[in-house]
Amino acid sequence: MTLKLHNFFRSSTSTRLRAALNLKGLDYEYIPYVLRKGETRTPEYLARNPQGLVPTLEREDGTVMTQSLAIIEWLDETHPEPPLLPQGADGRARVRALAYMMACEIHPLNNLRVLFRLGDQFGADEAAQKEWFTHWVTLTFDALETALAASPETGRFCHGDTPGLADICLYAQVWNNRRFDIATETWPTIARIYDALHRLPAFENAAPPNQPDAS
Amino acid sequence: MTLKLHNFFRSSTSTRLRAALNLKGLDYEYIPYVLRKGETRTPEYLARNPQGLVPTLEREDGTVMTQSLAIIEWLDETHPEPPLLPQGADGRARVRALAYMMACEIHPLNNLRVLFRLGDQFGADEAAQKEWFTHWVTLTFDALETALAASPETGRFCHGDTPGLADICLYAQVWNNRRFDIATETWPTIARIYDALHRLPAFENAAPPNQPDAS
Repeated sequence: MTLKLHNFFRSSTSTRLRAALNLKGLDYEYIPYVLRKGETRTPEYLARNPQGLVPTLEREDGTVMTQSLAIIEWLDETHPEPPLLPQGADGRARVRALAYMMACEIHPLNNLRVLFRLGDQFGADEAAQKEWFTHWVTLTFDALETALAASPETGRFCHGDTPGLADICLYAQVWNNRRFDIATETWPTIARIYDALHRLPAFENAAPPNQPDAS
Repeated sequence: MTLKLHNFFRSSTSTRLRAALNLKGLDYEYIPYVLRKGETRTPEYLARNPQGLVPTLEREDGTVMTQSLAIIEWLDETHPEPPLLPQGADGRARVRALAYMMACEIHPLNNLRVLFRLGDQFGADEAAQKEWFTHWVTLTFDALETALAASPETGRFCHGDTPGLADICLYAQVWNNRRFDIATETWPTIARIYDALHRLPAFENAAPPNQPDAS
């Protein structure tokens, strides 16, 4: 199966999906888009992804998939090894909740189109955008740090000693935070898990600077 | 099993979880919180939910669950009938992608704490908040309408003729839109599905005005 990954090196949701594909050992063709040039707003791209967002995963049979977390759940269902969610329902709920803290409470508020909108509607300059971005990261990373540090289920990674869905979101978010120089050391458990993840080739190879379109 | 639902009548994520519990036929004790009064920022509440968000589901054994979508996936795994996701991996990916369009691209940008933040950081008044809210709803509902209208998999509901995870998010979002008088008729497929959902007691009974703390 040759998968085509329509994505952008710096996109946090693209980083998530690259890490998941790497963990599953799946090869893919890397198709880069420059968001600032509107390359995901063309009629061709919108026909694949009506939201005009990255990533989009295109399967060999032409099936087109959108929304990084939906694609990662699909990868886990169709390519079960290694699993990205634990076996038990309670563990799965914990990992999904940790993932959604980042995927629903940080990333949506801080992606490029939101920062542009703050500029357009409120005249937010770079400093104001940084304040906004940092506010939402801090609010949720404080809670995430508490949740991770307090739980005996946290191991080398977010849940035990194998990387999964929550780690994928954490790794991508820490990379995203660098856009505004947010120091991960503020959150020691998050920093420790990020460091452990970055030692795994599946994650390091998914990192923004290691992509063909990195600039 | 007596479940305790810590929630708020107008909260969109609370509406989602109420609808899911109702669809599964599960009784729960309704415990209301007034967000504007800071009732989810107390030490007692933060011990259950470090983010200080609603909803939180507390199980009979004291297990505490957070993040509405993680709880709904858990409900579907532990109480399989009626299913909230289709059987096949492709259908599940489609339903999750539709759900995440709303859960990751609309709701996080428009909840109460974000509107407050726009006021605090940019001095956004009610009119500016409405413009912001409407912008994000329109952007994603336009794409959602396209995705739903274009697919033969759309039926009476978002995916076929039984309500599921995407419908739960759609129903809650349409209710949320009323805060700023956004007319659903702009999106005929979304409006049709909302109407079909609202005829089901599981949804109608989850609607904000039908809760004990409604005002």
